[in-house]
Amino acid sequence: MSEVKNANISERKAITLNKLKGLGQTIIDDVHKQEVPSIKVPSRGTSNIVYDEDKRHFILGDRYGKRSIGNVKQIRKIGQMMFVSNFCKNLVNIEKTATLREMYYVSEGWGMPFANQQESNILSEDLEVTIGSSREDLGLMPEEDGASVYGDIIFKEGDIEINGLKSGKSGYTISPTINEVDFVEHNVKRVIAVETMGMFHRMVQEHAYKKFDTLIVGLKGQAARATRRFLKRVSQELNLPVYICNDGDPWGFHIAMVIISGSAKLAHVNHDLATPDAKFLGVTASDIVNYELPTDNLKEIDVLRLKELARDPRYKSEHWQNEIKKMLKIGKKAEQQAFSKYGLEYVVDTYFPEKLDAMND
Amino acid sequence: MSEVKNANISERKAITLNKLKGLGQTIIDDVHKQEVPSIKVPSRGTSNIVYDEDKRHFILGDRYGKRSIGNVKQIRKIGQMMFVSNFCKNLVNIEKTATLREMYYVSEGWGMPFANQQESNILSEDLEVTIGSSREDLGLMPEEDGASVYGDIIFKEGDIEINGLKSGKSGYTISPTINEVDFVEHNVKRVIAVETMGMFHRMVQEHAYKKFDTLIVGLKGQAARATRRFLKRVSQELNLPVYICNDGDPWGFHIAMVIISGSAKLAHVNHDLATPDAKFLGVTASDIVNYELPTDNLKEIDVLRLKELARDPRYKSEHWQNEIKKMLKIGKKAEQQAFSKYGLEYVVDTYFPEKLDAMND
Repeated sequence: MSEVKNANISERKAITLNKLKGLGQTIIDDVHKQEVPSIKVPSRGTSNIVYDEDKRHFILGDRYGKRSIGNVKQIRKIGQMMFVSNFCKNLVNIEKTATLREMYYVSEGWGMPFANQQESNILSEDLEVTIGSSREDLGLMPEEDGASVYGDIIFKEGDIEINGLKSGKSGYTISPTINEVDFVEHNVKRVIAVETMGMFHRMVQEHAYKKFDTLIVGLKGQAARATRRFLKRVSQELNLPVYICNDGDPWGFHIAMVIISGSAKLAHVNHDLATPDAKFLGVTASDIVNYELPTDNLKEIDVLRLKELARDPRYKSEHWQNEIKKMLKIGKKAEQQAFSKYGLEYVVDTYFPEKLDAMND
Repeated sequence: MSEVKNANISERKAITLNKLKGLGQTIIDDVHKQEVPSIKVPSRGTSNIVYDEDKRHFILGDRYGKRSIGNVKQIRKIGQMMFVSNFCKNLVNIEKTATLREMYYVSEGWGMPFANQQESNILSEDLEVTIGSSREDLGLMPEEDGASVYGDIIFKEGDIEINGLKSGKSGYTISPTINEVDFVEHNVKRVIAVETMGMFHRMVQEHAYKKFDTLIVGLKGQAARATRRFLKRVSQELNLPVYICNDGDPWGFHIAMVIISGSAKLAHVNHDLATPDAKFLGVTASDIVNYELPTDNLKEIDVLRLKELARDPRYKSEHWQNEIKKMLKIGKKAEQQAFSKYGLEYVVDTYFPEKLDAMND
């Protein structure tokens, strides 16, 4: 299995280098044909972001903009894209990575440096959509690490094997270079991702990884790109069911939904990040009622957000529509740690088993 | 070495249990003496927070308040303290931990539940100062994990050995239970802690751990309690010099200073958390000038903060006073990743060696 994945990495690398080379070649070709060099950049405007019912996530439509050296306003952007492409080509070749922040500073030496971080961020996204590679494939890493993972699995990073039961109580940290990690072997039947590290540590202490033969993933709030990529990979490559347990409020719902169906903003990379088969386990509005959880009243901003979600195509299933309606009706929200009302062990001893059973009926 | 540390853990546990028992005993003794039960709670008010020149961190003074069951307003607080003490006694006995959030929900079953999270947080701090144990010793863990560590060191958590070179590219995560971790062996000469994970990954990629025989610690901004405890332990127990490299602005300065001299708010636990021998390596105002770094202008809030720091006893050394003055004079700040102006490798190949040399002259 390990070898297969390594082949996959070098293949991804070759594809990325080819795409970067191809981009430069279109400019050279235009010059040779004595035409004004131009580049087609797919549009990331909201009108070009479409929810794909089959893929079950947002994708980009076919609209694009043309950037031409014949347009004085666009010369700088094309020039910067060439510099960034060249920078990324070098990164991929020497197998290093850089943060967007580092690239921003590196650009000081380019003759046409970025005016600010925003400009360099947008340019990087332009490059992603233009050649159809993710920033991680281009060697441009997010600053933030991914989630923590605990459970009976062995990872391989280069020559190093890492045991998910022997990485310490806080588990193995998913790094931004998760694509280069192999899954060597595992002995689990599912993955349970939880919003807070408080719940992660509770599950480790109560031996949830044994009780449910599960990997425990501590999301630390909104899931980082690396976490989403990891969950997609365990779902696809290891064929494991993924369950997500967050706070019972619109924000917890949406942390789950972005894992499941991707975000609109990242429509161009959702195919790498979304896990449409992942399931939201809770905390649902029904859980709040059924388990008589300690609650807080919904604030105005919660209500507005719930109404927004109700109109979002990702929430169109009957189940989600009912849960959103129910939460609006009871006017309450609850945190995932609220189960402690019944004792620290309750969430692992009672809530998870009951919910997992119900979801697999 | 390992055995010594384990003895240390069970000793800490015994001490904590004794203190908790002692607290209950004072109430029982008062009852037996037919006196109105009361508890002395050291004051955490600003007037009782004193900078200790010898210890080089803030400590609490000798002022305290008395809470008496004879005072109707204080009955509830004393009752809650008894419940929390009992809750912690159980945690320590069964060797589990809970978050403050969990305890807040557990309190629903106590007959005198906390009105809100703030009330339970304050009560926990009251208990910390009253018996002189840290919340970690009481089993009350912060939600947040500590820093990432990469380098040639072996940790032991229970029966599990963890190699700091073999925990993945994002390193070993310091867990809130860092006090229970043993340092088995190591082959390093120093520790370099950096503010961002971007810089952490840069140092790993450029093999800074080999070049400088160093542990690399990724602080992720303001250092968590677990990180500060870890740095104190490597400084004290392993006798390693600790260097801190943050952004060159008042916020970066202060992230370093809280590691070095502790915070005023946590005066009652600074003896466990502060590392007075740790050194701020940079980015200094002098670095900004000497290395001609890309900068941003100081904002008004930066200027105000710098002037605040200049009056803070922790910054009274000539070195700090000069650096603060210089930054105010040039009116500029710089991020630690700004060295990328000279290429990604520059910070490891040039900046760190020059600074480490200069500091050891």
